[in-house]
Amino acid sequence: MTSRLTILGCGSALPTVINNPSAQILEMCDKCFLIDCGEGTQNTIRKMGLHTNRLYSVFISHLHGDHCFGLLGLISTFGMLHRTQDLHIYAHQDLEKMLKPLIQYFCRDITFSIIFHNINPRRSEVIFDDRTLTVKTIPLRHTVPTCGFLFEEKPRRRHIETGEKPFSYAYCSDTGYKPSIVKWVDGVDVLYHEATYTDEYRASADKYQHCTASQAAKIAQKVNAKKLIIGHFSARILDQSVFLNEANAIFPNTILAEESKIYELS
Amino acid sequence: MTSRLTILGCGSALPTVINNPSAQILEMCDKCFLIDCGEGTQNTIRKMGLHTNRLYSVFISHLHGDHCFGLLGLISTFGMLHRTQDLHIYAHQDLEKMLKPLIQYFCRDITFSIIFHNINPRRSEVIFDDRTLTVKTIPLRHTVPTCGFLFEEKPRRRHIETGEKPFSYAYCSDTGYKPSIVKWVDGVDVLYHEATYTDEYRASADKYQHCTASQAAKIAQKVNAKKLIIGHFSARILDQSVFLNEANAIFPNTILAEESKIYELS
Repeated sequence: MTSRLTILGCGSALPTVINNPSAQILEMCDKCFLIDCGEGTQNTIRKMGLHTNRLYSVFISHLHGDHCFGLLGLISTFGMLHRTQDLHIYAHQDLEKMLKPLIQYFCRDITFSIIFHNINPRRSEVIFDDRTLTVKTIPLRHTVPTCGFLFEEKPRRRHIETGEKPFSYAYCSDTGYKPSIVKWVDGVDVLYHEATYTDEYRASADKYQHCTASQAAKIAQKVNAKKLIIGHFSARILDQSVFLNEANAIFPNTILAEESKIYELS
Repeated sequence: MTSRLTILGCGSALPTVINNPSAQILEMCDKCFLIDCGEGTQNTIRKMGLHTNRLYSVFISHLHGDHCFGLLGLISTFGMLHRTQDLHIYAHQDLEKMLKPLIQYFCRDITFSIIFHNINPRRSEVIFDDRTLTVKTIPLRHTVPTCGFLFEEKPRRRHIETGEKPFSYAYCSDTGYKPSIVKWVDGVDVLYHEATYTDEYRASADKYQHCTASQAAKIAQKVNAKKLIIGHFSARILDQSVFLNEANAIFPNTILAEESKIYELS
């Protein structure tokens, strides 16, 4: 079964001409997950002609605007499209507190339920579990409580018969350099890791608790990932090939996240 | 002195591939006003390379998401850019109630003041007045309290000497057909009026309290405007030339609002 990643936004907080703020859609085990939802996410979804009727779950890594300001607009539009399926939102409890009054005010007539699942970003725990996959939180190091998400396919008959390993994908953004995440994402197939800066801006990375491309590559190397996708690029660095070169020198199987691009992961 | 209008978004509530939700920048009398601020407004500003350091005032016509969901992101970005000038927001009082907790949570470190001016959309009154111009509200007919805005240049020595009339611009969106607005915008130079539908969708226009292009043209005709700009186009009508043809038949000096386009008004 193919896993597919669609990058809707891979810029950092300050919007740029080339990059939207963070958002991506992961399709895995016939399910569809939205990970982070920066401003304009619904516009990109629409411009790409993507369908959202299979989108049941949204995972928000942390409550910085560039990771969640698009959620209210998305919910409002789902309402106008007469969505009927429940929408599950996995996020820090403050999001529910912030968003609920807005939903009540702006989305009075919505025809679907929104179920908030309050997660504790400081712990690694299973927050989603069904017949085919689990989602676990990955505690990260950032200026506000932040976690990544590990999506792990469950072993199926096919895996036993062919010896093929179940597929796994980890999303780690935003975070300062944190080698201790290795224990949670060891052996992951595809690691999406933030690389806000290049080594030239190491002081900024440390100050704002972000990573450089080479730090992201070091994590990929330590966890023995099959593939690294880097994103969350700073607006200060215009030539994005510098990110790739820096990461490639440490972890050769690195690719740059690109806006509106679809990646076949497995 | 040139007046200039920049259309950042001229679509209606449901986002489309071609149109952003409502937002425009009016430059008049050396000032710069943002009128409405749908989701993604800051992205369009940035993509167009516009400067916002002279943007002191934001006017929000009503509290539907497609007219205000971009405000929080814009404020947050102004914070990251270390803005120091005050930002004045003119809107229905509920916006302050809704937005304040979000600003406190998401924009903790902003280095500028936000001053909310609560307006009563049901009355026509002066809400802004300085040496060179006034801004008045225009009560409109919509599903929530809504007003338009009339920007009127004050007579200056130049006008007295040359006989030239001071320039005026009116923004009327969203609204059902309301001929009684004539008394407030009579003789306006440029009228921006919503035209969500064409006559074919007249029932929808009535139901959702919007206008057809021909209704917008009738208003322009009644007020004896010099020019009509129509916008707020429904996602249901893909061929926008139909809007123009319909309006042109009644009011020949009509132009279509176009995304990311700058109009020299005077």
